[in-house]
Amino acid sequence: MNEPHLQTRPKPSEAALAGLSSKLAEHLGDRVVASAAVREQHGHTLTWVKNQPPDLVVYPRTTAEVSEIVKLCAARDVPIIPFGTGTSLEGHVNAPCGGVSVDVSLMKNILAVHEEDLDCVVEAGVTRKELNEHLRDKGLFFPIDPGADASIGGMAATRASGTNAVRYGTMKDAVLGLTVVTADGEVVKTASRAKKSSAGYDLTRLFVGSEGTLGIITEITVKLHGIPEAISAGICPFPSVKAACDAVIMTIQTGIPIARIELLDEVQVRAVNLHSKLTLPESPLLLLEFHGSTAGVQEQAERFGEIAAEFAGGPFDWATKPEDRSKLWQARHDAYWAARGLRPGAQSVATDVCVPISRLAECVDETKRDIEACGLIAPIVGHVGDGNFHVQPLVNMDDPAEVEACEAFVDRLVRRALAMEGTCTGEHGVGQKKMKYLEIEHGRAALDLMRTLKRAIDPHNIMNPGKIVAL
Amino acid sequence: MNEPHLQTRPKPSEAALAGLSSKLAEHLGDRVVASAAVREQHGHTLTWVKNQPPDLVVYPRTTAEVSEIVKLCAARDVPIIPFGTGTSLEGHVNAPCGGVSVDVSLMKNILAVHEEDLDCVVEAGVTRKELNEHLRDKGLFFPIDPGADASIGGMAATRASGTNAVRYGTMKDAVLGLTVVTADGEVVKTASRAKKSSAGYDLTRLFVGSEGTLGIITEITVKLHGIPEAISAGICPFPSVKAACDAVIMTIQTGIPIARIELLDEVQVRAVNLHSKLTLPESPLLLLEFHGSTAGVQEQAERFGEIAAEFAGGPFDWATKPEDRSKLWQARHDAYWAARGLRPGAQSVATDVCVPISRLAECVDETKRDIEACGLIAPIVGHVGDGNFHVQPLVNMDDPAEVEACEAFVDRLVRRALAMEGTCTGEHGVGQKKMKYLEIEHGRAALDLMRTLKRAIDPHNIMNPGKIVAL
Repeated sequence: MNEPHLQTRPKPSEAALAGLSSKLAEHLGDRVVASAAVREQHGHTLTWVKNQPPDLVVYPRTTAEVSEIVKLCAARDVPIIPFGTGTSLEGHVNAPCGGVSVDVSLMKNILAVHEEDLDCVVEAGVTRKELNEHLRDKGLFFPIDPGADASIGGMAATRASGTNAVRYGTMKDAVLGLTVVTADGEVVKTASRAKKSSAGYDLTRLFVGSEGTLGIITEITVKLHGIPEAISAGICPFPSVKAACDAVIMTIQTGIPIARIELLDEVQVRAVNLHSKLTLPESPLLLLEFHGSTAGVQEQAERFGEIAAEFAGGPFDWATKPEDRSKLWQARHDAYWAARGLRPGAQSVATDVCVPISRLAECVDETKRDIEACGLIAPIVGHVGDGNFHVQPLVNMDDPAEVEACEAFVDRLVRRALAMEGTCTGEHGVGQKKMKYLEIEHGRAALDLMRTLKRAIDPHNIMNPGKIVAL
Repeated sequence: MNEPHLQTRPKPSEAALAGLSSKLAEHLGDRVVASAAVREQHGHTLTWVKNQPPDLVVYPRTTAEVSEIVKLCAARDVPIIPFGTGTSLEGHVNAPCGGVSVDVSLMKNILAVHEEDLDCVVEAGVTRKELNEHLRDKGLFFPIDPGADASIGGMAATRASGTNAVRYGTMKDAVLGLTVVTADGEVVKTASRAKKSSAGYDLTRLFVGSEGTLGIITEITVKLHGIPEAISAGICPFPSVKAACDAVIMTIQTGIPIARIELLDEVQVRAVNLHSKLTLPESPLLLLEFHGSTAGVQEQAERFGEIAAEFAGGPFDWATKPEDRSKLWQARHDAYWAARGLRPGAQSVATDVCVPISRLAECVDETKRDIEACGLIAPIVGHVGDGNFHVQPLVNMDDPAEVEACEAFVDRLVRRALAMEGTCTGEHGVGQKKMKYLEIEHGRAALDLMRTLKRAIDPHNIMNPGKIVAL
């Protein structure tokens, strides 16, 4: 498997699609759409993977409708591609084998909020911001924050995480249970609402991160957290990436329960300064957030300041008032658009890797030398507490040589991370672009096992074919 | 499936065993044992399930030897039962279909400790106490504490947790990656050492909690934590289980990062008083532990004290000196043997369920009324922060009526938990005794999916047959 766009199974015939379309319309009425614009929008993602539109787009409202859709597709051997908000980055929602994009954006019900249990049950189309809006008055929040206002279903499907995974974990940790429609149209509930269980195989984690290749997630029970009594935020420049990473390692070893700790390299800081008219020091920068009691966050911030000073970092500027915190974090929030501003008109190629934190400085430094050597503009932002970082090359897609150079750069980046006992993706997922690295990362036996799982659960390969394990 | 002792596949023939035994001896020498005493010890667990000894016991030293053992067994269609320390509670290591018990107790190497990454790699036979002994000088610890000094391999296989899961999670959370020998003898590495990854299906969590039915875990990479700067412990009586649970709910909602919060019912407290000559108030009791900075644990303890008072709990007695902490926690540490002391000579039937914490008081109260109604002696200890509790009926196994009454009681207990959106086991696992509840808990479609996984990964059903999904 060399081609990320590989079509791994036949596309459905025109006849099959026509029959399917009229059958779907019997159930869904005008929620079956075949217009080119809508189809293209559903093949499009925030990625540099070429658009591969599905044949049809459907908008179910219920799990029962999703089950019906899957059964109709299965009967005609037509592929199914689950679609949340389309903010995935590695070609997850493309339709290389054609088929039906199942857009869950009408599944917006928040089915239950259990305040005492700190969990809630939502339909797959609820976005994280919608959920947090709903929760605010209850003093609760859902912490996973991948940047984009993604759907909770899509976040579960891609094992998303983001800036505060260092404290609150990833979707692997946040999901208590799922309702999933499998390839035969069966509705599977993966777990009870108990906080922990040893009752059988972990079906929840089987589907979290499966990117729609094993089933469609329709409902999610997620853990919630109480909004902290106090939040403080800080910003701290360092003389080098190494110094910043060493400070992070000591912070975590010391047990400071840091909520967010983000690294911006000096290219990213320069981009933010230009974009937002700031005057941040153009050196590696850590952005931090502390959650806890009033005294607790003060103590955390003070202790971090001491650690930073040990590694020649500083001045450490911190604030507890919301407006001051927002200002400090502006650099991070603006990162994506600020980066794009470095080269207007260029395609932004967002990719990520993750390494053990002991190797992070080395991996980032080598990557920066590589960027310089191949003449790319590519800012770096890292969820440094997890060893996860993003590189965002800005590429002129009309220049084949440049595209090829970027492909080669990403390839070296991934292989560098793998050689350091890391992973080809910390949080973006495999989609199409990272498929070729699974065997290098996991080994042949593990990849074979993944394929065995895929074949057993989706024997006719209709669930998001051509992704993850390349079936 | 009604009989927990159901033999789900033929036992190996004498001829097959004889051939296997001599082949195994070629590789393992005297580390192949067929004596009745050793076989019985390996069919025995801390359970009331009848002993079902394996045909042979082998003691591999390496993953390669485990692979060889599995290949030899697979070639002769002989079952394999992984064995750690034999401290599982639901018949996990019994051999209802005969076969070879693979005892990993010689696999004791701690292969690597990565202090900066807060992880380490151990062989399956290393016990949690051995690991913590090894780590102590480095200022690190492995938090999962199921009570028994279980092997890390066995803990991963049963998705174990224990007293501090409320803060540090369960084995699901603690395991970064595994080396597993699957039914065909292949060696699978499930994950890199990155703290998080979205690179494909979550093979790690597929094996965590699979109780040896999908493969044998031979190496485990687990997350570590820095030993907290300060630890304080406390003990606090409450007028009722409800009051204690309400205090716990508020403590968690408030975001106090409590490390341990355990409930003892008054029967358990009485047992401890008798056993250890203490004079604790014989009412529902919470035992607590706080980890953090010196100021942090003081603040946590004070805030808990305020919450306890709101729910008529107290006096809240707390201490930071190690010897005083030990004294406060003595009641918890003595719980198992103290309970047995309530009825010398009786079999202790340890079982557990877990419910959403909002239902915990109701579930415990109903269970206590049930215990009283059926005349059992059965103390209750709960990992109350997770909604998980243990009931330990003391049963005269020579009295069939009493055994039957206890079986019926456990059945009602499990069904009660399931009716409250809970699970049939929070941390003990399914083994043989909880198999019949999986369909009630998860539904037919989910159980079918579990069976599909089992059949796909272990098509000849040689890995710990007759457990979990009853194949």
